[in-house]
Amino acid sequence: MAEYNKLTPELLAELESIVGTENFSAGDDVNEDYSHDEMPIYGSQMPEAVVLPNNTQEVSAIMKLCNENNIPVTVRGAGTGLCGGSTPLHGGVVLCTMNMNQILSYDMNNLCVTIQPGVRLCDLAADALDHGLMYPPDPGEKTGSVGGNVSTNAGGMRAVKYGTTRDYVLAMTVVLPSGEIMELGRSVTKTSSGYSLLHLMIGSEGTLGVITELTMKLIPNPKEDMSFILPFVDINTAISAVPKIKLAGLDPQSIEFMERDIVDSSAEYLGRQVFPINVNGNEVGGYILVTLSGNDADELYQRAEVLAEVGMDCGAFDVLVVDQPSLKKDVWAARSAFLTVIEAETKYIDEMDVVVPVDKIAEFLESAHKIGKKHGMRIRSFGHAGDGNLHIYCCSNNKTEEEFKAAAKLVMIDSYKKCAELKGQVSGEHAIGHAKKEYLRESVGETAYGLMGAIKQVFDPKGILNPGKVCNDL
Amino acid sequence: MAEYNKLTPELLAELESIVGTENFSAGDDVNEDYSHDEMPIYGSQMPEAVVLPNNTQEVSAIMKLCNENNIPVTVRGAGTGLCGGSTPLHGGVVLCTMNMNQILSYDMNNLCVTIQPGVRLCDLAADALDHGLMYPPDPGEKTGSVGGNVSTNAGGMRAVKYGTTRDYVLAMTVVLPSGEIMELGRSVTKTSSGYSLLHLMIGSEGTLGVITELTMKLIPNPKEDMSFILPFVDINTAISAVPKIKLAGLDPQSIEFMERDIVDSSAEYLGRQVFPINVNGNEVGGYILVTLSGNDADELYQRAEVLAEVGMDCGAFDVLVVDQPSLKKDVWAARSAFLTVIEAETKYIDEMDVVVPVDKIAEFLESAHKIGKKHGMRIRSFGHAGDGNLHIYCCSNNKTEEEFKAAAKLVMIDSYKKCAELKGQVSGEHAIGHAKKEYLRESVGETAYGLMGAIKQVFDPKGILNPGKVCNDL
Repeated sequence: MAEYNKLTPELLAELESIVGTENFSAGDDVNEDYSHDEMPIYGSQMPEAVVLPNNTQEVSAIMKLCNENNIPVTVRGAGTGLCGGSTPLHGGVVLCTMNMNQILSYDMNNLCVTIQPGVRLCDLAADALDHGLMYPPDPGEKTGSVGGNVSTNAGGMRAVKYGTTRDYVLAMTVVLPSGEIMELGRSVTKTSSGYSLLHLMIGSEGTLGVITELTMKLIPNPKEDMSFILPFVDINTAISAVPKIKLAGLDPQSIEFMERDIVDSSAEYLGRQVFPINVNGNEVGGYILVTLSGNDADELYQRAEVLAEVGMDCGAFDVLVVDQPSLKKDVWAARSAFLTVIEAETKYIDEMDVVVPVDKIAEFLESAHKIGKKHGMRIRSFGHAGDGNLHIYCCSNNKTEEEFKAAAKLVMIDSYKKCAELKGQVSGEHAIGHAKKEYLRESVGETAYGLMGAIKQVFDPKGILNPGKVCNDL
Repeated sequence: MAEYNKLTPELLAELESIVGTENFSAGDDVNEDYSHDEMPIYGSQMPEAVVLPNNTQEVSAIMKLCNENNIPVTVRGAGTGLCGGSTPLHGGVVLCTMNMNQILSYDMNNLCVTIQPGVRLCDLAADALDHGLMYPPDPGEKTGSVGGNVSTNAGGMRAVKYGTTRDYVLAMTVVLPSGEIMELGRSVTKTSSGYSLLHLMIGSEGTLGVITELTMKLIPNPKEDMSFILPFVDINTAISAVPKIKLAGLDPQSIEFMERDIVDSSAEYLGRQVFPINVNGNEVGGYILVTLSGNDADELYQRAEVLAEVGMDCGAFDVLVVDQPSLKKDVWAARSAFLTVIEAETKYIDEMDVVVPVDKIAEFLESAHKIGKKHGMRIRSFGHAGDGNLHIYCCSNNKTEEEFKAAAKLVMIDSYKKCAELKGQVSGEHAIGHAKKEYLRESVGETAYGLMGAIKQVFDPKGILNPGKVCNDL
C-alpha cells in the first residue's frame, strides 16, 4: 500500500501559485460538494485542497508536484458520477477540470471538434448543432462534462444506432501522473499504429492520466426524427419486441423501456399523463419508446410503417406516433424525469447499471424484482432496451441508513450474480468508481483484474492518481 | 534481452502430442511459407516447428510449454500481412490458427456471430449474408483470417460508413503467454466495466495473447447499394470533393480514389477499359469511386441526385452511375486488382499505409511523388479517400535488391516525416509488424512507445510471444 503525505503549507502555496488564488481552495474553504459525487451513500471524504487548472501546462505542474511529494490526486469533472469515482478517498488534492471548458476549434473537413475536457455535454451538443453537426452520444445527465463522459465511456439513449462515447474519441492530450504530457490519436478515423493507449484511457475513470484536451468525431445532423410509444400488456412482452425491431433493419436511434409503475410516478410528479395507461380497453403494463432518425421524411415514414407492423405482431396494443412538438417534448421530459422522480419519492437509494444481452433483459428484470422482494427492498427500473443497459434502483423510505445499506448490499450481490449467469457486465455506462470494484473483480475474474492492476502500476507507479478506484485496492 | 532456448527433441514431441501429428511439422518438413508474410522483402526466418492447434485448450497447452521453456512463439493467421508481423524473427514455434476455422453460432437476438479466429474474411462475409446479415469490415485481402483482421484492426473500404474491425469485436477468448485462458467482453454493445483489455488486444498483432475465439457484431444487410465513378482533371481536384460529399449528409459507404496511372495499368492487365479516360472531350487525371448504401431505393436515388450536384460543383466531368451488374463487377474487379497490377509490373516493391486527415490527402500524395522522384523511385498509389488511408507503393524494376532497399528506406523516412507534419499516423490498417517499428516510435514519441513496451512486459514477462514486433526491441 502506498504511503501518502499530507499537504504542507509550502505545497499548498505552490499549488496556489500554479493555478492562481481564484482557482484554489484548501482546508475549511473547500466546498463540501468536492467530497462526493451524486451518490454520497457510497461515502464522502473532504480533500485537503481543490485546484481548478486552466490548461494542460498547469495540470502538468500539479501532477509533477504531487507525484514528487506522494500526494494523492483525484480528478473530477462536473461531479455527476454515480459510483463514487470522483470521491477523494485518501484526501489530498481534487483536480477539477471545470475551468477548462472551451470549445477550441471545429474541423469541417474531417468532421471533428477539439475541446477542453470540462465542456459540458449539453453545451457541446448545442454548439455542434449550430454548426449543422450532431455529437451522437447522449447520456441522460446533460450537465456532465465530456471529459467525464470519456472517462466512463458514457453511453446514453442513442447508443443503439450511434455507439457510445468511445466511438467518438479521435484524439486526446493526457497528462501522466509524472507530469509528462502525451498526445494520443489524431483526427483520423482509421488507425493501426501500435497498442491503442487511446482506447485504454477511455473508460479508465481518471486512474491512468488526466485528460486535458479531446478531439471528438461529429456527424452531419440527421434532418428528421420520429418517436413512437408502443404500449404492451407487460414489460416482458414489450422487451421481446426489441430484437425483432432491430432485425427488421429499422435502424432505431433509441429503444427505451419503461415499467408502468415508473410511468405512473412520473405522471404524478409532472402533473401530466403523457403515456397512455389504457389503450383500446387494455390496461398497459409496460412500454417501449422507439425513435427513428434519418435525412429523408418519406423514407422515415416507410420505416415507421414497418415498425407499426412489427410492433403489432409482437403484441403492442397500438403504435402511437409522437408527432406534435408539444407531445414530443412532454414524452422526453417524462423519460428524462425518471431518475428525479425515483429520487424524489425515496429516502435512500442505491443503483445498478448492468448490461445484459437484449434477449435477457426481461429475465434479469424479473429476477431483480424477486431479489428485491426477498430482501425487503422496492425495485424500480427503466433503461435502454435497445442495448440491454438497465438502470435498476433499490429504494427505501422505511429503513434506517444502516438497514438500507445492508439490504441493498444483499440485493446487489444476488443481482450481479444473476447478471453474470446471463453473461452480462457489471456496468453499461456508469462505470466502477469505488462502489462497484468487488463486483467488477468477481465479473472479469482474477486474471483480467490482475492485468488491470498491473497496467495501473505501469502508468502510475506511485499510485497517486485517483487511488482506490476501478482495480486499485488502496 | 530475453534468452530463448531451442526446441529439444523432447519439446518437439510434446508439441506434436498436443496438436496431433497431422497438425505438426518441424525442421526440414516445415513449409517455407511459414518463414514470411506477403512482404518477404522485410526478411524471412524459418521456424523450428509449426503447430496448427484445433481449440483453445491446445493453444493453452502450447503456450504453457513454450513459456516454461523460453521458446518464442509467433502467431499466424492466413499470412496475408504486409509488415512482417507473422515472421518468426527468432525461430521457435509458429502457431498457425488456420485449423480453427469454424463459424460456431449466430445470435439473432443480439445480432452477433461467434467464430474461431482462423475463419477467413470472405467466408464470414458470405455466411453472414446467408443469414440476411452484413459483416461490415471489408479489407481488400478477402482471404485473410478474421483473427488477423482483429489483430491489426483492419479497416477496408467500408470504414467510412461502418468503422473498422475494432468496432465489430464484442468479445474474445484469449490465451495469455502463460497459458492462462481469459474471456474479454460479452455479446453486449455498451460497457463501462474496467480498463478495456478487449480494445488493448485489438490491434496488438499477436504480441499480448493468442485470440482463440471471437464474437463479432453484425448488422442487417442493407438492401440496396449504388456506385458512382466521378472523373476529374487531376487527383487533387478529385480528392477535394471528399469533405463536401461527407458534409452533404450522403453517408457514403466508401469513397476510393485512384490515379490515372494505375487505372491505365489495370485496364492493360485486365484487357478492359472500365474507367473512362476521356469524358466529354476532357482528359481524365484522377477519379473517385463512391458507393452509397441503404434499405430504400427511392431514398438512395435522392442521395444520388445530391451526389451528382455536389460532384459537378466540385469539378467532376460527370457522375457516372455504375448500374449494370456486369459494369459493377468490372469496376470492383478493377479496383480489387490494383495491388496485383502493381506487383505484376514491379520487380521490387515496398509500401506505406499512412493515414492522414482527408483534407491533407492531396498534399501527402504530391509530396510522396516528389520524394519518390528525388530518390529515383516510381511511386504508385490508390486508397481510401473517405478516411485518409493511403496505400503508397515504391516500385522498381531497374535497381538491385540492395539499391532498392536503400532507396526505399530514404523514401520511407522522408514520407513518414511528411505524414507526421500533416498530423497523420504511421498505419491506417496494415499495422506495424517489425517493418514499421522505428516509424511508430518516431510518430508516437518516447513516452507512449515506452508505455506500450511496459504493457507488453505486463502481459508477456518472458517476452516469448511474437518477439521483435510493434514495440518490442528484441
